[in-house]
Amino acid sequence: MQKVLVIHGPNLNLQGMRELAVYGEETLDSINEGLLKLARELEVELSIHQSNSEGEIIGLIHSAVGKAAGIIINPGAYTHYSYAIRDAIGGVKLPTVEVHLSNIYAREGFRHESVTAPAASGQIAGFGGDSYLLALRAVIELIRDV
Amino acid sequence: MQKVLVIHGPNLNLQGMRELAVYGEETLDSINEGLLKLARELEVELSIHQSNSEGEIIGLIHSAVGKAAGIIINPGAYTHYSYAIRDAIGGVKLPTVEVHLSNIYAREGFRHESVTAPAASGQIAGFGGDSYLLALRAVIELIRDV
Amino acid sequence: MQKVLVIHGPNLNLQGMRELAVYGEETLDSINEGLLKLARELEVELSIHQSNSEGEIIGLIHSAVGKAAGIIINPGAYTHYSYAIRDAIGGVKLPTVEVHLSNIYAREGFRHESVTAPAASGQIAGFGGDSYLLALRAVIELIRDV
Amino acid sequence: MQKVLVIHGPNLNLQGMRELAVYGEETLDSINEGLLKLARELEVELSIHQSNSEGEIIGLIHSAVGKAAGIIINPGAYTHYSYAIRDAIGGVKLPTVEVHLSNIYAREGFRHESVTAPAASGQIAGFGGDSYLLALRAVIELIRDV
Amino acid sequence: MQKVLVIHGPNLNLQGMRELAVYGEETLDSINEGLLKLARELEVELSIHQSNSEGEIIGLIHSAVGKAAGIIINPGAYTHYSYAIRDAIGGVKLPTVEVHLSNIYAREGFRHESVTAPAASGQIAGFGGDSYLLALRAVIELIRDV
Amino acid sequence: MQKVLVIHGPNLNLQGMRELAVYGEETLDSINEGLLKLARELEVELSIHQSNSEGEIIGLIHSAVGKAAGIIINPGAYTHYSYAIRDAIGGVKLPTVEVHLSNIYAREGFRHESVTAPAASGQIAGFGGDSYLLALRAVIELIRDV
Amino acid sequence: MQKVLVIHGPNLNLQGMRELAVYGEETLDSINEGLLKLARELEVELSIHQSNSEGEIIGLIHSAVGKAAGIIINPGAYTHYSYAIRDAIGGVKLPTVEVHLSNIYAREGFRHESVTAPAASGQIAGFGGDSYLLALRAVIELIRDV
Amino acid sequence: MQKVLVIHGPNLNLQGMRELAVYGEETLDSINEGLLKLARELEVELSIHQSNSEGEIIGLIHSAVGKAAGIIINPGAYTHYSYAIRDAIGGVKLPTVEVHLSNIYAREGFRHESVTAPAASGQIAGFGGDSYLLALRAVIELIRDV
Amino acid sequence: MQKVLVIHGPNLNLQGMRELAVYGEETLDSINEGLLKLARELEVELSIHQSNSEGEIIGLIHSAVGKAAGIIINPGAYTHYSYAIRDAIGGVKLPTVEVHLSNIYAREGFRHESVTAPAASGQIAGFGGDSYLLALRAVIELIRDV
Amino acid sequence: MQKVLVIHGPNLNLQGMRELAVYGEETLDSINEGLLKLARELEVELSIHQSNSEGEIIGLIHSAVGKAAGIIINPGAYTHYSYAIRDAIGGVKLPTVEVHLSNIYAREGFRHESVTAPAASGQIAGFGGDSYLLALRAVIELIRDV
Amino acid sequence: MQKVLVIHGPNLNLQGMRELAVYGEETLDSINEGLLKLARELEVELSIHQSNSEGEIIGLIHSAVGKAAGIIINPGAYTHYSYAIRDAIGGVKLPTVEVHLSNIYAREGFRHESVTAPAASGQIAGFGGDSYLLALRAVIELIRDV
Amino acid sequence: MQKVLVIHGPNLNLQGMRELAVYGEETLDSINEGLLKLARELEVELSIHQSNSEGEIIGLIHSAVGKAAGIIINPGAYTHYSYAIRDAIGGVKLPTVEVHLSNIYAREGFRHESVTAPAASGQIAGFGGDSYLLALRAVIELIRDV
Repeated sequence: MQKVLVIHGPNLNLQGMRELAVYGEETLDSINEGLLKLARELEVELSIHQSNSEGEIIGLIHSAVGKAAGIIINPGAYTHYSYAIRDAIGGVKLPTVEVHLSNIYAREGFRHESVTAPAASGQIAGFGGDSYLLALRAVIELIRDV
Repeated sequence: MQKVLVIHGPNLNLQGMRELAVYGEETLDSINEGLLKLARELEVELSIHQSNSEGEIIGLIHSAVGKAAGIIINPGAYTHYSYAIRDAIGGVKLPTVEVHLSNIYAREGFRHESVTAPAASGQIAGFGGDSYLLALRAVIELIRDV
Repeated sequence: MQKVLVIHGPNLNLQGMRELAVYGEETLDSINEGLLKLARELEVELSIHQSNSEGEIIGLIHSAVGKAAGIIINPGAYTHYSYAIRDAIGGVKLPTVEVHLSNIYAREGFRHESVTAPAASGQIAGFGGDSYLLALRAVIELIRDV
Repeated sequence: MQKVLVIHGPNLNLQGMRELAVYGEETLDSINEGLLKLARELEVELSIHQSNSEGEIIGLIHSAVGKAAGIIINPGAYTHYSYAIRDAIGGVKLPTVEVHLSNIYAREGFRHESVTAPAASGQIAGFGGDSYLLALRAVIELIRDV
Repeated sequence: MQKVLVIHGPNLNLQGMRELAVYGEETLDSINEGLLKLARELEVELSIHQSNSEGEIIGLIHSAVGKAAGIIINPGAYTHYSYAIRDAIGGVKLPTVEVHLSNIYAREGFRHESVTAPAASGQIAGFGGDSYLLALRAVIELIRDV
Repeated sequence: MQKVLVIHGPNLNLQGMRELAVYGEETLDSINEGLLKLARELEVELSIHQSNSEGEIIGLIHSAVGKAAGIIINPGAYTHYSYAIRDAIGGVKLPTVEVHLSNIYAREGFRHESVTAPAASGQIAGFGGDSYLLALRAVIELIRDV
Repeated sequence: MQKVLVIHGPNLNLQGMRELAVYGEETLDSINEGLLKLARELEVELSIHQSNSEGEIIGLIHSAVGKAAGIIINPGAYTHYSYAIRDAIGGVKLPTVEVHLSNIYAREGFRHESVTAPAASGQIAGFGGDSYLLALRAVIELIRDV
Repeated sequence: MQKVLVIHGPNLNLQGMRELAVYGEETLDSINEGLLKLARELEVELSIHQSNSEGEIIGLIHSAVGKAAGIIINPGAYTHYSYAIRDAIGGVKLPTVEVHLSNIYAREGFRHESVTAPAASGQIAGFGGDSYLLALRAVIELIRDV
Repeated sequence: MQKVLVIHGPNLNLQGMRELAVYGEETLDSINEGLLKLARELEVELSIHQSNSEGEIIGLIHSAVGKAAGIIINPGAYTHYSYAIRDAIGGVKLPTVEVHLSNIYAREGFRHESVTAPAASGQIAGFGGDSYLLALRAVIELIRDV
Repeated sequence: MQKVLVIHGPNLNLQGMRELAVYGEETLDSINEGLLKLARELEVELSIHQSNSEGEIIGLIHSAVGKAAGIIINPGAYTHYSYAIRDAIGGVKLPTVEVHLSNIYAREGFRHESVTAPAASGQIAGFGGDSYLLALRAVIELIRDV
Repeated sequence: MQKVLVIHGPNLNLQGMRELAVYGEETLDSINEGLLKLARELEVELSIHQSNSEGEIIGLIHSAVGKAAGIIINPGAYTHYSYAIRDAIGGVKLPTVEVHLSNIYAREGFRHESVTAPAASGQIAGFGGDSYLLALRAVIELIRDV
Repeated sequence: MQKVLVIHGPNLNLQGMRELAVYGEETLDSINEGLLKLARELEVELSIHQSNSEGEIIGLIHSAVGKAAGIIINPGAYTHYSYAIRDAIGGVKLPTVEVHLSNIYAREGFRHESVTAPAASGQIAGFGGDSYLLALRAVIELIRDV
């Protein structure tokens, strides 16, 4: 069974505590449960991690080499300045889907630019926890196309 | 049965003729077939249109009021400057998913900014024809959440 | 009796449906009625059009040559990028008043710049439907000064 | 009888001496006469002031509280950088119309941006002395809507 | 006999009416006559169109596929913002010459940047109606080189 | 007993009337009372002024030379463009604390940049009337360090 | 007794070694002693931490939830680019004071912009070690106002 | 005998107190003495003023109409943002020389741009008090050329 | 017989050695031969020069006064920064055609802006060696129109 | 024997796996072997580290104080935004050479600016693994000059 | 007798031929005669040169070392981009006055910035040929102050 | 024996005279002696040139074709704007090392960008005369790798 690495970036452990208007009522746990349920359905294995540390996230991405067939990553605020995460994604050469809970275009100006997305395969943003479910379907398609 | 309006913007009628490296081998017809198949599966009705005209696309969006429960739109190059399409999306107040075949972040600088996305519910980009299939799943979720 | 051409640009047909906080409760019909009433009072004839299409709006402006003595135009979102409408206004050389329902300076940054206004005679913005009534008075003064 | 405060900003005392091509032949006196005549017609009282001093203009705006029902202001060149006048307008919370003799969009780049307009109710520009007459009509409508 | 598609963009139907200092005394008809005369001389067939509509211009470009061997286009003001026309030119993969009557570099700042030119083969600007005649010679050379 | 000059800039006389959400319920009088009370406690004398005029504020700053040992200044909106006030602060070479009632970073973009702060010793912003009390403590420390 | 979390960001462990002209002679230890002394006086408890790691700082901020009543943070150079720390501060919703030893406005251009301050309650900068003491007074006021 | 108006702008009354490295040891009085001496030599009359107030400076410039044949002005920091002073200079249409003690190009970035100079006849900067003497010679030449 | 000055700017002596993909296989000699052949046909005399030196190119342009009736110039990379060459072209007031082998718009960003073109009559770019032949036709038309 | 600290930044552990066209075939191990061989030759001791974490890299730099005589650092993508690493380099005041495998000027725009280099002694970029060998020679010269 | 080096930059040999509206009727010869006459009066020797070549101008500046006591330079269009001339002026450490015939602030935007002036002692602009005479007086004062 | 071309750009002949703080005490002669000594050691021949002229430097680069195996160039201030030198380096396709005496990142903003470096193989900056010695080692490695 193929494995997909799921990385939740900084502050996503607060999810459920953060602004309801922006992020909705889902918690990180409920998102992960949804993901695991869909994974069973689609017959893939998930390895799920949350980290607030840029260096750790880079390490997680590196760790996928030879172990996972694809990556789902929500880089949180690192999306907007972490060229190091971008280089990590670009370096491991795996199908990678960038995910955002909220529509980053409808928020502050600095959230309109993603510096990590150019290294990803594609991006899904604005559907709350469903962004992750759509990403799981997307990454599986990408893995099958490789 | 709920109806979803699908709008293919400018130059998408050329799809299949355009740069293989960027857009893949799919044609607009094969994308539409995929969409219709999934729509049957998910039990929604689709109304699919292609237009190169900004004014016509605005008219199509307006026409959704009272007829469709959600919109999937690929505004093509209008994505990057059509504040008029943005106002149309914002005006009709329906769940709307912006779709792109290619990863707009991995292309020319002018394609990184979407002026229409702030008015949409969310955005899915970079998965070729699958972007539309994911969008259909997404818009149905949004309709159910309303 | 002199004729004034009135052009309502993109999405103004939605007027009344759009954000109450920004645009108020007036509908396009109630605005037009107000305009026609004032026109009778001021003894001018009006020719009123709404179009979502940039090309059609350009055509309407051209059509004024030899037929109308002045133009009132609300270019909607085209205000902010349609250099083609600007060239049309500049080309027909008729007194032209640019109108906006809302105070464009108090909204999103992209609405602060008008690329069409440099070709117009003047601009009136922020008075809801009254913007049009003031514009009618203004354009008549301009016609008389010519 | 309701009172409207009219403020002519810096260099408007030179009006009639300044560039004919830009500002026309009207003098500040002839503009004021026109305003007073229309005020009698529309049954409002006017309190008219000219000042070259930013601080004095702020003081005039403050003085309107409890005394005038609305403000007409031509901030002259302060339009383009006086955030202090903007704060004064925003602070007194009265219907306020920003007026310009010339079409500020058809002049030098620095005149395209108004930093005071976001705090005003609306803006009228480009109709010479008539800009003030239109502003008087506009402010009265705003006062009646309050 | 090979066919060349000639597209005159927005406001070019006004040509002859517009600013003499910028555009000279030629009318669109006299330009077209000159083109047809040279075409006979150089033994190519011309298909000449004028449109104010961005969508229509995109459609005209698409229509060239399989019918014309090359395109001459004056995108008028669309030159400066129509990424959709750029994508259309890029999509049909035909030798395409961008033409301007005036020297766009010697005019307003916004006319210095052409967003359509990167997709064209080359650009000729500043020679009045002769720009088109030079373009016809140029496109024929390009067709022969293919 | 050492003297500290306190300068309230433009529109601060409106304090208490202005937006509650931004500035709280304090009035200028209640802020001054708080300041005087703390001054007695800390055994310094205060000289408190409010002015809407840039020139007057510059004069007040100059007047401190030889009379006051330090300055507390809230330059209001002048913070964002008055290089003349900056030069005045820089010219008198006294310990100077810049104060703001609101968190200028959490407001409009133009309020993020302070052109006067580089000439001041430090800045305290965002604590309502308490900003002044903290500034008084700060300026006294600075005076003692000189 | 209420608890306040104090976070010293990157390189502050070098304090005392770094440029005397900019940072003065205080060491981190002497600053902490001053803070603890004032805390006893004001009857609050302090929990003091220094970290060079962005991820660790985010974790420290999260750890305040349910344990501390307010936060004092000097984000060091992260002030200027860590949107992740900004999101952490915004996420925990506790009174938070941003502190800087030096006047960031009087230093290099990149130090003028704080990306973390919009999420904080206020900012105190430029008073050396006293910045922290003022911040302690400020955060206590904020806690009492809640 | 012809009269020349000399205006010293904001903070120039501090001259002699300000940074020696930038402004030298001259005081405003010694500069004025030098000017009066040269004026006697060149047989012109001087009217010398210093003001910190933008509004007052505008008034001084207006007062020159019909009384002085030329103006020498050092707008101090207003040089960099006072479009109102620029309009005053442009409005009175007298030969006007802008003067600066220091080389504004060799100082902070914001001092490189003069917004008043486009309305002046010319600019002399960087020669300390001699800048004024050169300006006096220059303005006399301009007056004779008129 | 009228004379046309042809100036090949910096690095054009390398032509034929440089990147084939960008500049094609033509050498400077083959371009010159083509030019001379067409000149004989069109009955004009050519004076052809290549220089890598900005100063020398300025001298060549000056030398045209009284000797040549028009100029064809490929300023090479100087196109993008030589305001001195622009002033030379503007100073001699002769019909001047700017030529580029490649489509400068389809290359690096810095090649999109031509600072010399505003002083030229027109520009021809993107047709390889044919750019020069078209330019020769263009300059002759311009000479005849003078 | 003097010690030099060598720090390999984020993603350099992937070296050898990353894009061949950009980084060549060398692995981090082969680079380190080359360094150690040259160090023996030049009689210095090396302490070599790789880290993906910004905080850890800051800690490594701090650790050099009193232990190493100089630093060689390849900050990887942190080069372009880590003001915290810049402050660490600036804080320890040791001879420091910034190294890059590739020519950062020949890559994406964001890689042209180094925010860490202003605090370093010098920079060597573009020579693959040899960049490190040159850096070792350079840092030794710098140490001897101290 | 002290010597002053006078350098006329690119295109100044055309002076008298260039745009009358901008540069007046003076020729380079009449300017030089005026300079020589004043030099005799002020008892200095002049060495006058004109060059279109940036390299030659740099060489002229270098040649002043040990031979001239000061430099008057009109860098023409090089003013706006020649950092090499700026470095030459900065390198020779002689009193240097930058001169411009026209008011560079009242012309095209690119002429507002002088990159050479920061290295000069001061700048005189806008007085036609008199700019040079004023510069001669200025440079002599500077020489005497050294 | 292989030959390496060494080009010292503008103002480097002043080396030793220029600012000690920035450039150190070395003269161009001492740098050249160091280079020649190392060249003998490494068994390559050097051809060393200094020129202030952009055109001459381009000519020197061209002259390397067929004669030298690599180039060391310090383009001085041309580094920051000479796209013509960049094209020359790019055109000759030889291993080329760009050298700077000082750390260009630690100086004025305009020196942070190198427009020539993208065409070079690599860059070495900040080591005084040693920059050249390192460059000689580097270019020899590059020549051997070709």
